[in-house]
Amino acid sequence: MIKVGIVGGTGYTGVELLRILVNHPGVELKVITSRSEEGLPVADMFPNLRGHTDLKFSVPDTDALGACDVVFFATPHGVAHAMAEEILNTGTRVIDLSADFRIKDVPTWEKWYGQPHGAPGILPQAVYGLPETNREAIKTAQLIAVPGCYPTSVELGYLPLLENNLLPEQMLIADCKSGASGAGKAAKVSSLLCEVSESMNAYGVAGHRHLPEILQELERAADKTVNLTFVPHLTPMIRGIHSTLYAQAPGLEQDLQALYEARYADEPFVDVMPAGSQPSTRSVKGSNMCRIAVHHHKETGQIIVLSVIDNLVKGASGQAIQNMNIMFGLEEDMGLKQVALLP
Amino acid sequence: MIKVGIVGGTGYTGVELLRILVNHPGVELKVITSRSEEGLPVADMFPNLRGHTDLKFSVPDTDALGACDVVFFATPHGVAHAMAEEILNTGTRVIDLSADFRIKDVPTWEKWYGQPHGAPGILPQAVYGLPETNREAIKTAQLIAVPGCYPTSVELGYLPLLENNLLPEQMLIADCKSGASGAGKAAKVSSLLCEVSESMNAYGVAGHRHLPEILQELERAADKTVNLTFVPHLTPMIRGIHSTLYAQAPGLEQDLQALYEARYADEPFVDVMPAGSQPSTRSVKGSNMCRIAVHHHKETGQIIVLSVIDNLVKGASGQAIQNMNIMFGLEEDMGLKQVALLP
Amino acid sequence: MIKVGIVGGTGYTGVELLRILVNHPGVELKVITSRSEEGLPVADMFPNLRGHTDLKFSVPDTDALGACDVVFFATPHGVAHAMAEEILNTGTRVIDLSADFRIKDVPTWEKWYGQPHGAPGILPQAVYGLPETNREAIKTAQLIAVPGCYPTSVELGYLPLLENNLLPEQMLIADCKSGASGAGKAAKVSSLLCEVSESMNAYGVAGHRHLPEILQELERAADKTVNLTFVPHLTPMIRGIHSTLYAQAPGLEQDLQALYEARYADEPFVDVMPAGSQPSTRSVKGSNMCRIAVHHHKETGQIIVLSVIDNLVKGASGQAIQNMNIMFGLEEDMGLKQVALLP
Amino acid sequence: MIKVGIVGGTGYTGVELLRILVNHPGVELKVITSRSEEGLPVADMFPNLRGHTDLKFSVPDTDALGACDVVFFATPHGVAHAMAEEILNTGTRVIDLSADFRIKDVPTWEKWYGQPHGAPGILPQAVYGLPETNREAIKTAQLIAVPGCYPTSVELGYLPLLENNLLPEQMLIADCKSGASGAGKAAKVSSLLCEVSESMNAYGVAGHRHLPEILQELERAADKTVNLTFVPHLTPMIRGIHSTLYAQAPGLEQDLQALYEARYADEPFVDVMPAGSQPSTRSVKGSNMCRIAVHHHKETGQIIVLSVIDNLVKGASGQAIQNMNIMFGLEEDMGLKQVALLP
Repeated sequence: MIKVGIVGGTGYTGVELLRILVNHPGVELKVITSRSEEGLPVADMFPNLRGHTDLKFSVPDTDALGACDVVFFATPHGVAHAMAEEILNTGTRVIDLSADFRIKDVPTWEKWYGQPHGAPGILPQAVYGLPETNREAIKTAQLIAVPGCYPTSVELGYLPLLENNLLPEQMLIADCKSGASGAGKAAKVSSLLCEVSESMNAYGVAGHRHLPEILQELERAADKTVNLTFVPHLTPMIRGIHSTLYAQAPGLEQDLQALYEARYADEPFVDVMPAGSQPSTRSVKGSNMCRIAVHHHKETGQIIVLSVIDNLVKGASGQAIQNMNIMFGLEEDMGLKQVALLP
Repeated sequence: MIKVGIVGGTGYTGVELLRILVNHPGVELKVITSRSEEGLPVADMFPNLRGHTDLKFSVPDTDALGACDVVFFATPHGVAHAMAEEILNTGTRVIDLSADFRIKDVPTWEKWYGQPHGAPGILPQAVYGLPETNREAIKTAQLIAVPGCYPTSVELGYLPLLENNLLPEQMLIADCKSGASGAGKAAKVSSLLCEVSESMNAYGVAGHRHLPEILQELERAADKTVNLTFVPHLTPMIRGIHSTLYAQAPGLEQDLQALYEARYADEPFVDVMPAGSQPSTRSVKGSNMCRIAVHHHKETGQIIVLSVIDNLVKGASGQAIQNMNIMFGLEEDMGLKQVALLP
Repeated sequence: MIKVGIVGGTGYTGVELLRILVNHPGVELKVITSRSEEGLPVADMFPNLRGHTDLKFSVPDTDALGACDVVFFATPHGVAHAMAEEILNTGTRVIDLSADFRIKDVPTWEKWYGQPHGAPGILPQAVYGLPETNREAIKTAQLIAVPGCYPTSVELGYLPLLENNLLPEQMLIADCKSGASGAGKAAKVSSLLCEVSESMNAYGVAGHRHLPEILQELERAADKTVNLTFVPHLTPMIRGIHSTLYAQAPGLEQDLQALYEARYADEPFVDVMPAGSQPSTRSVKGSNMCRIAVHHHKETGQIIVLSVIDNLVKGASGQAIQNMNIMFGLEEDMGLKQVALLP
Repeated sequence: MIKVGIVGGTGYTGVELLRILVNHPGVELKVITSRSEEGLPVADMFPNLRGHTDLKFSVPDTDALGACDVVFFATPHGVAHAMAEEILNTGTRVIDLSADFRIKDVPTWEKWYGQPHGAPGILPQAVYGLPETNREAIKTAQLIAVPGCYPTSVELGYLPLLENNLLPEQMLIADCKSGASGAGKAAKVSSLLCEVSESMNAYGVAGHRHLPEILQELERAADKTVNLTFVPHLTPMIRGIHSTLYAQAPGLEQDLQALYEARYADEPFVDVMPAGSQPSTRSVKGSNMCRIAVHHHKETGQIIVLSVIDNLVKGASGQAIQNMNIMFGLEEDMGLKQVALLP
């Protein structure tokens, strides 16, 4: 059994890690930390966990965390910077769900996050935890940077086109819609039901922190510069990201349906939908699946890719556990076979 | 492996059976029937099932169903009346999620359902499938009537009071709130998002079909006549029932918290919350749990019991599978350990 | 034109006052105060008001407020205690939407609000602003205490029964369901969309601040002691209160439909629905109407009254303006003829 | 007073016409037709109208309709084709909210609507009822084709760019998100709360009926061929359209904020938001306003226009009444000053 610790389990990615891990047959939950909630049973904060775990929040402690095989960080950015190295030094592997190690270029990180990078020394060893591109590196990684939610859905949607160099130089457009859980559990007026429900709006049009991460990964796939306009939108639902991805490829004759199906044929958590499909986010609600449909208007050269995930599962905690399974040689889908809750 | 068939798998209780059964380790799904959708892969109708099952809808056929160990009916009322006996005669056990066999008194059934009872001959052998009261009978039952959603939440909430004869003669009041999935997947204007969302209303105030079922079971528990006012309400959410149950017991000194905890101590799917709790339906969303809190205002004699379930799980498909587990000697919670999806 | 000031216009009752008042033909908006937002155009905070008003938030100032004919307080409790007397002394009339002057008994107020009463000296002159019971007193009132949202719906529902002494001594039960705007615009985790949406729960079962207010008014109507169990519930919608009101009257033969219709025949904002109706909250969304349906199960003696309002309109800002209209001799429905937004 | 008739008042655009017209000071409602609901008071179908109108549904009758000054069609496509000419022949003016007269090219209409055009004879006199481009023609029009909901939001968003020829030849992209009321009140499984809520999906990616309408109008504004990819999405809310409009203009230096403000300076129902804004659909919920924000990333040449409307008001019934006001020489905003309902 893999001994698991969680740093910062009071937010939505934290409870989602717990939801999955308490039923994961290869895992033993040992530690969950929260300075503010020390001593509180996690099931008192999250009643869905009643009967599933007796774990209590404890103050972060390197000895206790170092006794685990792997530690997940479900914390705001900056925390893993401060704590990861010490834990890694004990030989414990770290899977960071925050943005701390996603961006390889330190000045870029510092520009978008508005603070000095707290751990440039260990940044080079961080592996970007997108199994669909980095499975081999993940197997032996000591430090995983779990991709962001928007990046996961956008990257999986564009990868087959970029890896095969099918797109001319152009401005790609990713019009993305997210449920409110993407903003986390912080007490903000802008996240109140009365502010979010029965409404829709764009945000971050001038620039969003996920843009540099997406660009880094798209450029790695394309092996060239990529131009991208990324417009996130807030949608009145709890979970789900729907990315509508646009690209122009005048004259392209390739069978994109076949291309996508081949690219993801062996991927347990990418489902290429039948031609003509229009997946809904609820088809992945609570599951680790990414469902993708590719539309190709050959007469105009327009390609439209629809990519949906649950932002808290494949966009965060599920993907983190998928990484863990790969790192420890478990079946990649162990503990991750939940069927989406529909309706 | 238990061979399972499903009659009528195109509605919400059907897809919910499938969601749970595809990951149930003791079950082999053999047949799912739908006259209208013959030949269609179920995953084409319910994309959350893509990758989880290759089953296709087939026309109901007694040979195929009779080759199963157990057949679930997830059909409108009347269908099990017409088909159950023939299947039972093959030796296959039947678990009926509809209302066909819940009410023991034929004239009562006929009054509330407005049609002749179609199977009075096998009605006596039907066991009311509430494990918390009928576990022993369920073990050997050939025909199970799965309780309705409202009845499950109301009965579990009142049982400890009635079984212990703690309530004087009076009008009990069950004020119940249900999500929209309780109305099923039928194409009705009254179930449209634009009609249900951002609104709340009572319905069935003059009388609701679940009333005689609840009364039958409360009276069985109390072993005397029970008076009940039952007012269901439609709430703008997909899943969940919240029953607020009122009773007057002037002068009662008993520790009801202890009574409830003792009554349900060994029940895997009834969770008595700590004193003072006010459970939310989301704490059971997607899970088979019923969470109950009992409030006792001793100075006024007022008892208020709060009981929440997911109407599609403990209120339908999950409870049906719990019955199956009991009937076939499996662990009672096999396949039913899902943690509620929160948020 | 009546010159109007608003103290504390940054919350939901504040913006709702503005929504109605900017189109009110008898009113000139002069002042709106907010210490924290001084200088900000209100339309910058509430974009729905763009094009409708150029008013800016200003620091509360007795001279400016005293130059108004009437000042609304849309503030947390305690603020009107501190400021109302000074404004009244200038001859300006005050309409307080908070709880500061609703409860006539000072110790009761202090018990439920956990702080000393800040203005016992002017409390006796406060008129409880429920036009359906206090219209004459409202006409000449200098200080109005606008009823709470739950109290408005519960009192209007029970009044005809209590005023006519039709109920024996008993425990009345008010099972009330409110949308999330009842909790206001404060940044609280418990009001986040991800916490409230797709869920339902009771709260305040042990006691809620609106209970003493409701009791005071029901007892005034009944002219005797009333026993009431009041259980509020949080419903996943923005606006609306649905009160389900229970009473037992064994043997009562009176035609309650006729009683209710007669009682409210001249009331512009109480709509007694046809017999057998089950009003939905959306039928009053954005309007000042209270819709009531009375159900009488004569065979059991059970009376069930359904009463719906928009908590921000008839439950707060609309009722406040209805009071203003009465106080200044305007048509009572001036500015309040909005039709509910359906769907 | 203008005498008004409505053909087909049982859907969402019908009730929305009524909501506005019952409070319109220049209008007298004379007739509302529905074959299926003959004799039913409209307030029995739409309880929000109780107390606002005594009108009953009647069977369509040319004499009664011809006695009106203007008749609105709030009907499925094809109905106005069949009935409009006869009404026009009585001298009564017609405002059609359906798609029957929006598209000037008959074969195009027939291709997208899959049936023969029923009224090519009167099509030439139909005026496209977008006041922001056709105000003069509307004044004298006998037959108005009210623009579709998506077209209104997309056209108002792109007009300033196209009218000024600022865009090179390219594929424009309109990524549009609509609430569920866009699908109307028909009883369809795909519109159920349980299907739409807590989910998001694209639809009509292969082609949507609003595309040819949008193209027709954009090309009229641009006076040249326009290429457009239009992807509509279904969003889990009742009302609102959010259009995110993309265009590339490399090297363009023009101040687009000033351009948009100048273009719409005199328009009562187009609000150009301050630079950097990201309007939410709730800022126009229930109002006839279109709010637009223009974002210009000069370093990349990317233009992003955000345009929000209430699909039932500016996208249908409100715009229809705006047309009526213009046709009859009333103040253009008469009866249309409602402030959006927020929250």
